[in-house]
Amino acid sequence: MCTQSILVINGPNLCLLGKREPGIYGKLTLADIEKMVRLECDALGFECAFMTSNHEGEIIDALHAAPFKYAGVVLNAGALTHYSIALRDAIVAVDIPCVEVHISNVHAREDFRRVSVIAPVCAGTISGFGAYSYVLGVQALKNIIG
Amino acid sequence: MCTQSILVINGPNLCLLGKREPGIYGKLTLADIEKMVRLECDALGFECAFMTSNHEGEIIDALHAAPFKYAGVVLNAGALTHYSIALRDAIVAVDIPCVEVHISNVHAREDFRRVSVIAPVCAGTISGFGAYSYVLGVQALKNIIG
Amino acid sequence: MCTQSILVINGPNLCLLGKREPGIYGKLTLADIEKMVRLECDALGFECAFMTSNHEGEIIDALHAAPFKYAGVVLNAGALTHYSIALRDAIVAVDIPCVEVHISNVHAREDFRRVSVIAPVCAGTISGFGAYSYVLGVQALKNIIG
Amino acid sequence: MCTQSILVINGPNLCLLGKREPGIYGKLTLADIEKMVRLECDALGFECAFMTSNHEGEIIDALHAAPFKYAGVVLNAGALTHYSIALRDAIVAVDIPCVEVHISNVHAREDFRRVSVIAPVCAGTISGFGAYSYVLGVQALKNIIG
Amino acid sequence: MCTQSILVINGPNLCLLGKREPGIYGKLTLADIEKMVRLECDALGFECAFMTSNHEGEIIDALHAAPFKYAGVVLNAGALTHYSIALRDAIVAVDIPCVEVHISNVHAREDFRRVSVIAPVCAGTISGFGAYSYVLGVQALKNIIG
Amino acid sequence: MCTQSILVINGPNLCLLGKREPGIYGKLTLADIEKMVRLECDALGFECAFMTSNHEGEIIDALHAAPFKYAGVVLNAGALTHYSIALRDAIVAVDIPCVEVHISNVHAREDFRRVSVIAPVCAGTISGFGAYSYVLGVQALKNIIG
Amino acid sequence: MCTQSILVINGPNLCLLGKREPGIYGKLTLADIEKMVRLECDALGFECAFMTSNHEGEIIDALHAAPFKYAGVVLNAGALTHYSIALRDAIVAVDIPCVEVHISNVHAREDFRRVSVIAPVCAGTISGFGAYSYVLGVQALKNIIG
Amino acid sequence: MCTQSILVINGPNLCLLGKREPGIYGKLTLADIEKMVRLECDALGFECAFMTSNHEGEIIDALHAAPFKYAGVVLNAGALTHYSIALRDAIVAVDIPCVEVHISNVHAREDFRRVSVIAPVCAGTISGFGAYSYVLGVQALKNIIG
Amino acid sequence: MCTQSILVINGPNLCLLGKREPGIYGKLTLADIEKMVRLECDALGFECAFMTSNHEGEIIDALHAAPFKYAGVVLNAGALTHYSIALRDAIVAVDIPCVEVHISNVHAREDFRRVSVIAPVCAGTISGFGAYSYVLGVQALKNIIG
Amino acid sequence: MCTQSILVINGPNLCLLGKREPGIYGKLTLADIEKMVRLECDALGFECAFMTSNHEGEIIDALHAAPFKYAGVVLNAGALTHYSIALRDAIVAVDIPCVEVHISNVHAREDFRRVSVIAPVCAGTISGFGAYSYVLGVQALKNIIG
Amino acid sequence: MCTQSILVINGPNLCLLGKREPGIYGKLTLADIEKMVRLECDALGFECAFMTSNHEGEIIDALHAAPFKYAGVVLNAGALTHYSIALRDAIVAVDIPCVEVHISNVHAREDFRRVSVIAPVCAGTISGFGAYSYVLGVQALKNIIG
Amino acid sequence: MCTQSILVINGPNLCLLGKREPGIYGKLTLADIEKMVRLECDALGFECAFMTSNHEGEIIDALHAAPFKYAGVVLNAGALTHYSIALRDAIVAVDIPCVEVHISNVHAREDFRRVSVIAPVCAGTISGFGAYSYVLGVQALKNIIG
Repeated sequence: MCTQSILVINGPNLCLLGKREPGIYGKLTLADIEKMVRLECDALGFECAFMTSNHEGEIIDALHAAPFKYAGVVLNAGALTHYSIALRDAIVAVDIPCVEVHISNVHAREDFRRVSVIAPVCAGTISGFGAYSYVLGVQALKNIIG
Repeated sequence: MCTQSILVINGPNLCLLGKREPGIYGKLTLADIEKMVRLECDALGFECAFMTSNHEGEIIDALHAAPFKYAGVVLNAGALTHYSIALRDAIVAVDIPCVEVHISNVHAREDFRRVSVIAPVCAGTISGFGAYSYVLGVQALKNIIG
Repeated sequence: MCTQSILVINGPNLCLLGKREPGIYGKLTLADIEKMVRLECDALGFECAFMTSNHEGEIIDALHAAPFKYAGVVLNAGALTHYSIALRDAIVAVDIPCVEVHISNVHAREDFRRVSVIAPVCAGTISGFGAYSYVLGVQALKNIIG
Repeated sequence: MCTQSILVINGPNLCLLGKREPGIYGKLTLADIEKMVRLECDALGFECAFMTSNHEGEIIDALHAAPFKYAGVVLNAGALTHYSIALRDAIVAVDIPCVEVHISNVHAREDFRRVSVIAPVCAGTISGFGAYSYVLGVQALKNIIG
Repeated sequence: MCTQSILVINGPNLCLLGKREPGIYGKLTLADIEKMVRLECDALGFECAFMTSNHEGEIIDALHAAPFKYAGVVLNAGALTHYSIALRDAIVAVDIPCVEVHISNVHAREDFRRVSVIAPVCAGTISGFGAYSYVLGVQALKNIIG
Repeated sequence: MCTQSILVINGPNLCLLGKREPGIYGKLTLADIEKMVRLECDALGFECAFMTSNHEGEIIDALHAAPFKYAGVVLNAGALTHYSIALRDAIVAVDIPCVEVHISNVHAREDFRRVSVIAPVCAGTISGFGAYSYVLGVQALKNIIG
Repeated sequence: MCTQSILVINGPNLCLLGKREPGIYGKLTLADIEKMVRLECDALGFECAFMTSNHEGEIIDALHAAPFKYAGVVLNAGALTHYSIALRDAIVAVDIPCVEVHISNVHAREDFRRVSVIAPVCAGTISGFGAYSYVLGVQALKNIIG
Repeated sequence: MCTQSILVINGPNLCLLGKREPGIYGKLTLADIEKMVRLECDALGFECAFMTSNHEGEIIDALHAAPFKYAGVVLNAGALTHYSIALRDAIVAVDIPCVEVHISNVHAREDFRRVSVIAPVCAGTISGFGAYSYVLGVQALKNIIG
Repeated sequence: MCTQSILVINGPNLCLLGKREPGIYGKLTLADIEKMVRLECDALGFECAFMTSNHEGEIIDALHAAPFKYAGVVLNAGALTHYSIALRDAIVAVDIPCVEVHISNVHAREDFRRVSVIAPVCAGTISGFGAYSYVLGVQALKNIIG
Repeated sequence: MCTQSILVINGPNLCLLGKREPGIYGKLTLADIEKMVRLECDALGFECAFMTSNHEGEIIDALHAAPFKYAGVVLNAGALTHYSIALRDAIVAVDIPCVEVHISNVHAREDFRRVSVIAPVCAGTISGFGAYSYVLGVQALKNIIG
Repeated sequence: MCTQSILVINGPNLCLLGKREPGIYGKLTLADIEKMVRLECDALGFECAFMTSNHEGEIIDALHAAPFKYAGVVLNAGALTHYSIALRDAIVAVDIPCVEVHISNVHAREDFRRVSVIAPVCAGTISGFGAYSYVLGVQALKNIIG
Repeated sequence: MCTQSILVINGPNLCLLGKREPGIYGKLTLADIEKMVRLECDALGFECAFMTSNHEGEIIDALHAAPFKYAGVVLNAGALTHYSIALRDAIVAVDIPCVEVHISNVHAREDFRRVSVIAPVCAGTISGFGAYSYVLGVQALKNIIG
């Protein structure tokens, strides 16, 4: 493949970024983040696609399809991070690296947010750097699939 | 807004009310409950809409859309009450009050039903009064958005 | 019985309502709440009595006496909610319905307030609607003993 | 002391025996039990007194006074069994043996009834034999203070 | 009904069977398993239908519809087994027997796979026999709905 | 049956009574206890047999055989009390009442001794009265099978 | 080996089947089950032997001897399922497949029955189908040692 | 106020000081302690009052009344320390500082004594210095309300 | 006693040593270990006897008899280590030192193997040195009973 | 010794007092506190020395040396309070009384700060009175070593 | 400050990188990582310093000194991550941002590595990307202090 | 290497042996133990060195240096045993066997002493034999590095 493509997946409630608890999640919208990510991808020679859904099943469907088009995934699973074992199994089932990202520092919030059922099966985790967590996620993925 | 509208959301398996374990959930169908709620809304000067789904994602979608049409939500999340952190996050993310209702007394059943992950982010909770829990929910909402 | 009577019981520290942590419990005093409740009872054709105590034993005594005069109980057990198994046993022991009410949303506070040892033996629970929780409690009781 | 006296203490809700959940606690009233106990005391050469209260504080007061009049205590602490550390401390503080009795088999009911905070400081425990548990308790006390 | 029909439901990620962690799940695809199951159904005089989805909501929808067409269900809920209380409620709500099957021995894997929230409401459970677990599931169902 | 017979079962290490930790278990041997029990049985018009073993299997065998000869069982299961679910199942499986007795106050010792897996299926429990616990056990049994 | 032999092991209290809690374990005796199993074995070309004991040690002895005569084991360990780590070690120590079966649905009963210490080292588990669980166990074994 | 007054509250069983487990609580009676405290108060220019009760309700009543007469409270809640959430709520509800004192080192005793439900809402805690803990408590209060 | 004798007890499944999971337990048989131990005993001037059983009851019987013939015990309790409180009580009940040995490093395996119910009542524990753990056990015993 | 000396030990991060989270720890520096303590020591006829370190090992070294020069220790172990069992063992190992002090009310902060591994082996504990906790600590020590 | 400086801190055992469990931590030595980090710093216009120690106290000392010379910290605390509350307090106490990095995916290893006591007080966390985690850490810090 | 050398490491508070809680740790000083160990080493043809420190960091430093001079380590980590994951990682990181020894029987003391975070990565563990545990540790090491 001449140019590598990556997929950025956003889980439940992330479509509300910018409006949703800006004290925690910042003022950037998902569109703003998409622009930041595309800029970074351009710099690294990546193409990238965005997929956003409130439905666990759709995210699993997208992960299943991913290996046919993408070399890796940057995944902000939102609240599914904390309980969706089905999502965990999907990450294991597909054969491409997945980088877990979080906008907020999940360890500085409620206790239940400290548990990530997907972390053990992702390549690595980045959390707490606001929208910039996505940019770091893209760089991490670049370093893996280089 | 001249007449305020509210949204009544019913989660998984509530469409089977009347047939499903009548010893626990009573003999009224969801249609019966809808009638009771509409009657109460008429009395209070509310309009109301009903949304029922077995899909967590659809309920989150509906919550996201709610602030554009409704002044508040009466939510019976069914079993999602006990594990859907995504639903919890959706309630926080939208800017309208949400009243949690349950038909049965969830504290008098299995232990896992005593945990509600959405209760801390709802305005309040009403449980155990059968179909009448919905009517009380509408009244509570009226008192909040008055 | 021509006119039905109900008893409203208030547990420890509720006599300080209005002065006690108004950010959590609101600015209404117990006298204000009593007025609201009496108004609602009048509307529903109920008579009502109030009993308030900081003593677990006195509340249990009152519950034991209740069936001889009242058709039901609205109970805000205050902190006893969380540990008084003796109160729980009293509710089971007497033969009239008991509706549990809370002014604050107990689920949005300290963890230990999420446990109610009396909830499994009450008819149902209403929490989080401020002083209006009592009004809803009276309505719920009406619906049960109606 | 020519004739030894013992004190039988009954905690919260035991005054309702006979009416309260007869499936669990049997149909005998506290008066019936008192008769059984007095009969047994007569046979054993004991005098006995009864003290019944729904108030933790009154039971502690009674225990404090007990060593001045009684040689031992048969104690059915009711629900206080499960949480009253103050009662536990009172039993340790006074210098006479205390036999813990329960009408029902507390181990065959809810989990929280399996914890007795007073058992470690009583001479021994008898539970599950209905009203006859009191009779056995008197005999056990006889054997100790004999 | 002359010939009885059964429904075989497969949950999240099972569509990837054969490719997904073959060391754990074996090399047979879902199509291979379907053939095995159909063969067994033929032998037992059953008709059978297959339903496969990554969406919790669709599986619940399918269960709700099942009693109108099928006499029983063989259910491999995949990862939903471990947290979908909504699925559990759906199984209770519908009036046909449900047999839980698993390809791998869930007890020989991660701790969280040892918890099945649906097991208590299924007729029985079969796990660890690879694709043959489905065949045993059909036989078990035959024995129940005979 | 003219004269009723009962069986007294002693579990592991009880054959060493008198020599084993006399500070906890007292100085009476099992033979001494047998004498006390026989005296009490004579007084109550019972015949009684003793069975003592360090083998869980032999005690279960003895329980299985018991209904054919005995009207009830006094059981000191020793350490099996705390983990032998097989013994628990045996008690449930046979159709005669079983009274659990302990020489020491099990609640005043190590934490693991506070759990009795057999208590929920015995008629009742007596503990802490030394060898006299057996005598009380016989009386309790008399009261049940009267 | 011309004809393969298998061993069916039954643990504590299973000899009482038919008489023991028929609401849970059914009305078939162990002899009835043996007939069913032999019939199935005949159909599959197996010989089979039965071994039943209330003694953990005897069951371990039997497992140690099994590889010299049998190609596999169907094991209903009764209550030992929940605590006998010695049995677990025996299953690992011998070199033949072992299929765990249960008559009742262990997940629909007491919490402690949901833990099987032997499940992780058995080939697979079948529970909840009454006596038919044994027949399914034989078929599962056939499929493994085929 | 010319001379500041403080209130010293003693909870359940503290009236028995001197007689009650002197190895743990020392030989001083409550009267001895009162003398020590009055001496210290004199030195610091305080007036002080003593209130002692075995009744949770009376202690809460006393706390409610305290702000009208006293500038602060020294509280030895006895065993209520470990479970009386009602007492905790009373401390929060009144508007004067409360210093928690204990005679014994509660951390060197039973595990349940290490939990203080009132500590988080008191100004501070002093434990382990025998009767002198009260003197330190008065000094600490002086430093706060000084 | 001119020559001191010791008893080496081996619990469930240890008779299979050499064949059983050699990666964990090594390739030496129990006969090989017996030779090593006898050699060491000769060097230390001990006589020694071996007792091996899969039956908890037989091991307890052997411990009860031990003080009459042996000066100390080297005990590899196998899996009974983790749950046999009866074995623990037997060790306490007899009056000779007991050294706990394990072939494998029990702390480097499953979590449940990290709990030894007998360790607190043994003189000491040696684990992880393969067959040589027995030799060290004999030396430790020598040092104690020397 | 004519004049008694005491040692005041300050653990990790306490050197930053005054700058470090003044909302929690106050605005006084360690130098300010040292002045307060020296003033109090002068009044009580004590000499005192200060030792401050971020190194667990140095604090243990200092404790080991303490008995040769000091009659007692006032110890603010900082965060080591919550996990340094080595510090706990050092306190037990040396033969002088140690008073545990904390500036903040550790019970009103994060849960992990409510556990003190050193409290059970200190003479007593004082927490929550700001810098004045040290002064109270000195007084408490005076009372002990008098 | 013209050029910003940052400090990279490495905790216990990281000096052995390259030799220590290369399957988990990779083959790069700390010197190799330092080169990578310096290259990245050059590119971003940072100066950087390295500090490596096996001593908790020295790392805390270094953190205390850091604000006087550095604009931020990249911290790989090694095993201290999991228990050093003193380190956590140091991070809070100093006034510069701290980015937590880990070479391995701590969530894919032992359970105790999933708990980071420092994560809640760091700006954010990066783990699982091998030596490249440091590079990402520098970038994240740049984005914060940029 | 002609003569093999081993290193004996002693952790916090062990330098006080002989004076520190002699009822638990015995009356031998570390110097006495060193003599015993040197004697045993002479007999086995070992040279040995001693390293003792109260500083976790120094012990880790010593372990890092050990492979260059020693063939194995006998480690009594003192209280670090129970929480120093950094020490655990150091043991794994260096390439020589490490034998864990304890003077007291850690299982017969406080609960927190039953957890060893280093045991899973040591070759084996010896505890409870007093100073002789070191001698056994040397022998065990001899057997490993032979």
